[in-house]
Amino acid sequence: MENQEIQITYTTTEKPKPNAESLEFGKIFTDHMFIMDYSLEDGWHSPRILPYQPITLDPAAIVFHYGQTVFEGLKAYKTKDGHVRLFRPNKNMERLNRSNRRLCIPEIDEEFALQAIRELVRLEKDWIPTAPGTSLYIRPFIISTEPYLGVAPSKRYQFIIILSPVGAYYKEGINPVKIAVEQTFVRAVNGGTGEAKTAGNYASSLKAQELVAEKGYAQVLWLDGVEKKYIEEVGSMNMFFKVDGEVITPSLNGSILEGVTRNSVITLLQHWGIPVIEKKISIDEIYQAYKDGLLEEAFGTGTAAVISPVGELSWNGEKLAINGGKIGEVSQRLYDTLTGIQYGTKEDTFNWIIEVS
Amino acid sequence: MENQEIQITYTTTEKPKPNAESLEFGKIFTDHMFIMDYSLEDGWHSPRILPYQPITLDPAAIVFHYGQTVFEGLKAYKTKDGHVRLFRPNKNMERLNRSNRRLCIPEIDEEFALQAIRELVRLEKDWIPTAPGTSLYIRPFIISTEPYLGVAPSKRYQFIIILSPVGAYYKEGINPVKIAVEQTFVRAVNGGTGEAKTAGNYASSLKAQELVAEKGYAQVLWLDGVEKKYIEEVGSMNMFFKVDGEVITPSLNGSILEGVTRNSVITLLQHWGIPVIEKKISIDEIYQAYKDGLLEEAFGTGTAAVISPVGELSWNGEKLAINGGKIGEVSQRLYDTLTGIQYGTKEDTFNWIIEVS
Repeated sequence: MENQEIQITYTTTEKPKPNAESLEFGKIFTDHMFIMDYSLEDGWHSPRILPYQPITLDPAAIVFHYGQTVFEGLKAYKTKDGHVRLFRPNKNMERLNRSNRRLCIPEIDEEFALQAIRELVRLEKDWIPTAPGTSLYIRPFIISTEPYLGVAPSKRYQFIIILSPVGAYYKEGINPVKIAVEQTFVRAVNGGTGEAKTAGNYASSLKAQELVAEKGYAQVLWLDGVEKKYIEEVGSMNMFFKVDGEVITPSLNGSILEGVTRNSVITLLQHWGIPVIEKKISIDEIYQAYKDGLLEEAFGTGTAAVISPVGELSWNGEKLAINGGKIGEVSQRLYDTLTGIQYGTKEDTFNWIIEVS
Repeated sequence: MENQEIQITYTTTEKPKPNAESLEFGKIFTDHMFIMDYSLEDGWHSPRILPYQPITLDPAAIVFHYGQTVFEGLKAYKTKDGHVRLFRPNKNMERLNRSNRRLCIPEIDEEFALQAIRELVRLEKDWIPTAPGTSLYIRPFIISTEPYLGVAPSKRYQFIIILSPVGAYYKEGINPVKIAVEQTFVRAVNGGTGEAKTAGNYASSLKAQELVAEKGYAQVLWLDGVEKKYIEEVGSMNMFFKVDGEVITPSLNGSILEGVTRNSVITLLQHWGIPVIEKKISIDEIYQAYKDGLLEEAFGTGTAAVISPVGELSWNGEKLAINGGKIGEVSQRLYDTLTGIQYGTKEDTFNWIIEVS
């Protein structure tokens, strides 16, 4: 696989680059995309970069009916001096293969997939916005393409990478969000697909999200599917709390996603000597900490927001105001450090950065 | 919606009809398909029948990433005198809308969707095989087509119907299958999407299915996601047991699919005066019934097999042989009656049949 050459077909009609000020998330795509095919006979083959174009599939393709698909999300950042950098992309490739195993999708060569990302990003480097907080979002994904209505793993797949320039997550400083603890719907359960990055997890989350949005909440905080008692994730981010000087986060229990930002946050906190513990956390424990005046900070972690502080938690009809609705000290330090490493203004102590160009 | 006319574009190159003897499930498709579009501005619009052809979508289409999709499955049967019949298709359309509501997909007009099915099947009536047990499988499905990587309901959809001639499920008489009780993986949990017919439920089932197949089992029997104790479904069928003269089936608890065949079986049993009870059924209860010599029959129900008798159940390392591995009396009677109604050799007592032509 490593020796396969990526064929490139250049676009003949370059699209206009968007205005960095008005950039949203995931709506505009660059001039090119990467595709690679899988068949039982040839394995993963024919890696190529093509002009960004529609995918053409048989209406019976398995992805439309049985959702056998996985994806990843990461970003390319441009430094002030024009260097293009990726943040721990090897972690995303490892997770893509973990998702593949859960979904019965043939594994990819992680080194080669990373090479494909770098080659595509290099080609599209002029699409990477440079305004503060902006970046190029990278979406690798695999879809099952065999036309067959039987419920069985597909015999054919496509691995595709598309790129989208995205605006700053926080356009006017970091605003803590209001989160509602979800007590009816469940995102995932042990034995399900919760720790895989696959379509069904997101489809099932839409309804809960829609209902809390009507009440003015930005996201839901998911509880476990068994007892509806233990904290899992918030929206599509991992969740952290700072309680009485100690940072706690739900342990990887099989139903939550192993976030790259989550892992980086834990590493940073350990490095700083701030106690950080991965454990089973009940919503009651958080409520009690709040009542005792010990709930100091709460924040989500993910590729899009990096750190998303939670200013209010709604649970059982009560509204828990956290840190006066303002971002906490540790949250701010984590945000500054992670984005500093990503954009090259802070030292990359842990060798997290991979240069593209 | 009812007054919208379905535009028809006929194919200019008819495909050869397959040999009825060699027909498999869901691999061959007819000459035409139905499509209808949805947008926020126009609602569901532009219903049309086109030559069967690939779907062209932006690679960022939501269905590829977040699996916002629902589907249905039903069959058209041809009687000896050439009539074409559908079995309770209104139930499928009702369920499609229930699935739509769970997945935040705009509801369709059920009457119009049924009209579309009838018009498409009528056009393709020569594709309906006539050998015993064969039929034309109908797959209506909805996919989210908006190109957007944010996790939110799509603003655009396509409702598509494709048709596939399928062979007899039982080519050499009804062979009871071996089923393994699944003790690791979970199909669905209360608060999830288990009662919706949506892609993610099927994607998550592939791994368990793959592992039991290696041990010679045809399907898995799913237990509930909370206690891993209560019976949910078998593979993609509903499950029934006959214990000491009484038929029992798991009640609709929010995480199992409300099968049309399941409902029909309950109706028939009640009509025949055979006790049938919907209730929470633990695997221990079934095991105890087996030990006491009271487990008389076990069978799955679904559109593909109609009735699928279970001859062996594997649980906790034990193999429970049911009715000597042969089909039971009630299972056989249900199969004969349901297929008799479908193919027009038995009276349609409950007005379940809708004529196409």
